Amino acid sequence: MMKAKGLDGIVVDDSAICKIDGNAGQLIYRGYDIHDLATSLSFEEVAYLLWNGDLPNGEQLNEFNKQLMCQRAIPDNLKSAIRELPVSSNVLDVLRTAISVLGAEMPLKKPDMDDAIAISAKVPTIIGAFDRIRNGQDPIDPRDDLSHASNYLYMLTGHTAEPVKVDALNKYLILLADHGMNSSTFTARVVASTWSDAYSAVVAAICALKGPLHGGAPAPVLKMLQNIGTPERAEQWIRNELKSDRRLMGFGHRVYRTTDPRAQILKEIAEKSAPIKLIELAKKVEETGIRILQEYRPQRKLYANVEFYSAVVMHSVGLPPDLFTATFAASRSIGWTANILEQVANNRLIRPEINYTGPLNRKVVPINAR
Amino acid sequence: MMKAKGLDGIVVDDSAICKIDGNAGQLIYRGYDIHDLATSLSFEEVAYLLWNGDLPNGEQLNEFNKQLMCQRAIPDNLKSAIRELPVSSNVLDVLRTAISVLGAEMPLKKPDMDDAIAISAKVPTIIGAFDRIRNGQDPIDPRDDLSHASNYLYMLTGHTAEPVKVDALNKYLILLADHGMNSSTFTARVVASTWSDAYSAVVAAICALKGPLHGGAPAPVLKMLQNIGTPERAEQWIRNELKSDRRLMGFGHRVYRTTDPRAQILKEIAEKSAPIKLIELAKKVEETGIRILQEYRPQRKLYANVEFYSAVVMHSVGLPPDLFTATFAASRSIGWTANILEQVANNRLIRPEINYTGPLNRKVVPINAR
Repeated sequence: MMKAKGLDGIVVDDSAICKIDGNAGQLIYRGYDIHDLATSLSFEEVAYLLWNGDLPNGEQLNEFNKQLMCQRAIPDNLKSAIRELPVSSNVLDVLRTAISVLGAEMPLKKPDMDDAIAISAKVPTIIGAFDRIRNGQDPIDPRDDLSHASNYLYMLTGHTAEPVKVDALNKYLILLADHGMNSSTFTARVVASTWSDAYSAVVAAICALKGPLHGGAPAPVLKMLQNIGTPERAEQWIRNELKSDRRLMGFGHRVYRTTDPRAQILKEIAEKSAPIKLIELAKKVEETGIRILQEYRPQRKLYANVEFYSAVVMHSVGLPPDLFTATFAASRSIGWTANILEQVANNRLIRPEINYTGPLNRKVVPINAR
Repeated sequence: MMKAKGLDGIVVDDSAICKIDGNAGQLIYRGYDIHDLATSLSFEEVAYLLWNGDLPNGEQLNEFNKQLMCQRAIPDNLKSAIRELPVSSNVLDVLRTAISVLGAEMPLKKPDMDDAIAISAKVPTIIGAFDRIRNGQDPIDPRDDLSHASNYLYMLTGHTAEPVKVDALNKYLILLADHGMNSSTFTARVVASTWSDAYSAVVAAICALKGPLHGGAPAPVLKMLQNIGTPERAEQWIRNELKSDRRLMGFGHRVYRTTDPRAQILKEIAEKSAPIKLIELAKKVEETGIRILQEYRPQRKLYANVEFYSAVVMHSVGLPPDLFTATFAASRSIGWTANILEQVANNRLIRPEINYTGPLNRKVVPINAR
């Protein structure tokens, strides 16, 4: 028996998918450094890599792109189900419900690659459909001549986005696609370990991603930047937040003890895609935040985390803040399904213990004697 | 760092809810032995106990019963959503979708007692509504003059059940209400640890309960008993299954090294509520199964588990086999929500690690060179 609240330092299994070196600030998918992947590949290539273990050759990639495109459309009963939800719904609740509705059409079976492709292909379509419906518009059908990133932006707006935006979103989707045993991916593995199906495992992952401690901070980061307004206000604004015991959004990470490599790459993307005023503001807030946080916690330096520049990038490609976490889900669905497939390939039911500290030897007395 | 595939022997936290002694075959809720609770209390009293830590007095129980009854009805948009699902849906898929739809109406907030009551009160109503709809009938509204167990049977059939059936179901619902860190309850705690909401945590728990390694075996147990048919066929049937390398349903448990106390109590209930032929058959299969399994695994004796007599009891109260796991969910929703409330009262994000064993130092080459 070993006690570990939060499971810190507990290794649940072996995995050949993703390696995080929190001290070196390195992230690796299937042996490739995240920097190399994000700067030179399409999201589709990286999805293929995460699912299959190797990068595709030209023929494999063509076939794979076709498989993904074929699976983008969502059925009419799902569009009806989305229309039944309140327009004010949290987008994660819509996504959770939608994947659950899709799963109700499927037999209970061992998760396979078809499930991974079908689910991941449909996540952007679901988000796009809800965003259109809540704005009083009809959902836009996916196009099969656009990349995953480009088609996502097209389904939101009805027109094809500028290449700089498509490129920024493509890189974002690669960077966030997997990240070790984060809570949502771990949840997906726990569910898959019961021999439940892939749809259930992804639904459960969405449930975990909804939590502000996990997937919920990019929108508040943008709000913070908007509240600060201009670079020269950063110092006073941040000092005031920390004095009032409020948490500074977008700083610090459970795993990284140095710069998060994803944050660095996102910063480079933002420098190309974001308005100059916003990127100048973000850089000033980052630098000021790191400096002031170190005054408060000299024993552990905190850095801007992945959510900090994610917010800037997602805003710059035209996404509204309440789609930020859903877009995170569109990316992370790759990692969830890759982990689900790995879990069921060599499974052991995940079932820890808990230490009972309550009373003992109580006797039931009749209700009128209580 | 400590490696533990399946998290065997890893203690995730302290808890004052439920104690399992797998060697002694003892199960305790909040200090009370499960035998005392199941034989003398109502499901409502035990739900109150699990959520609040103490049994209610008369006034508290009256108030609590009213709160539960007020929350039984489901809104029209949920009935529509259920009607949109295929009539062939797995009932767990329906339940998962339905709780997700209910959650979409709620703000993202810290789980509280109102959530626990609202969700648990509605689970039987959702199951009843779908069972009616798939049989071409209209859902039956809950009644507020019936107990939780009695109202559940009423919503399925449209008439009030005999006391022996209500009593059997009441006891079943108590016995299955909580059981330490089983995979679904653990899933609920992982999701709650992200500061997600109570509905998301329960949806995720349903996803895990759907897995045959966790919640899925009572229906196959009944099928097995029906296939065996008569007590004198038990020996040959079981030997044939094991010779053919098939798993014998309803035997063995991850935690118990002796008789599961719930199985014992369910057997006593089945002796009162089940047809004499079925209970005689079940007892013969139990005894024969234990004996023959010990020939195959002399180093570890396997016993009939909770699912074995659960199947007999649920069949005897009139539930169709494909409602068995959903009825398990109706019971376990109490434990899920009790654990969610305990998790958020003293939270730490649950995030383990995984050991990377894949390749390293790979370089991205252009697609035409792959």
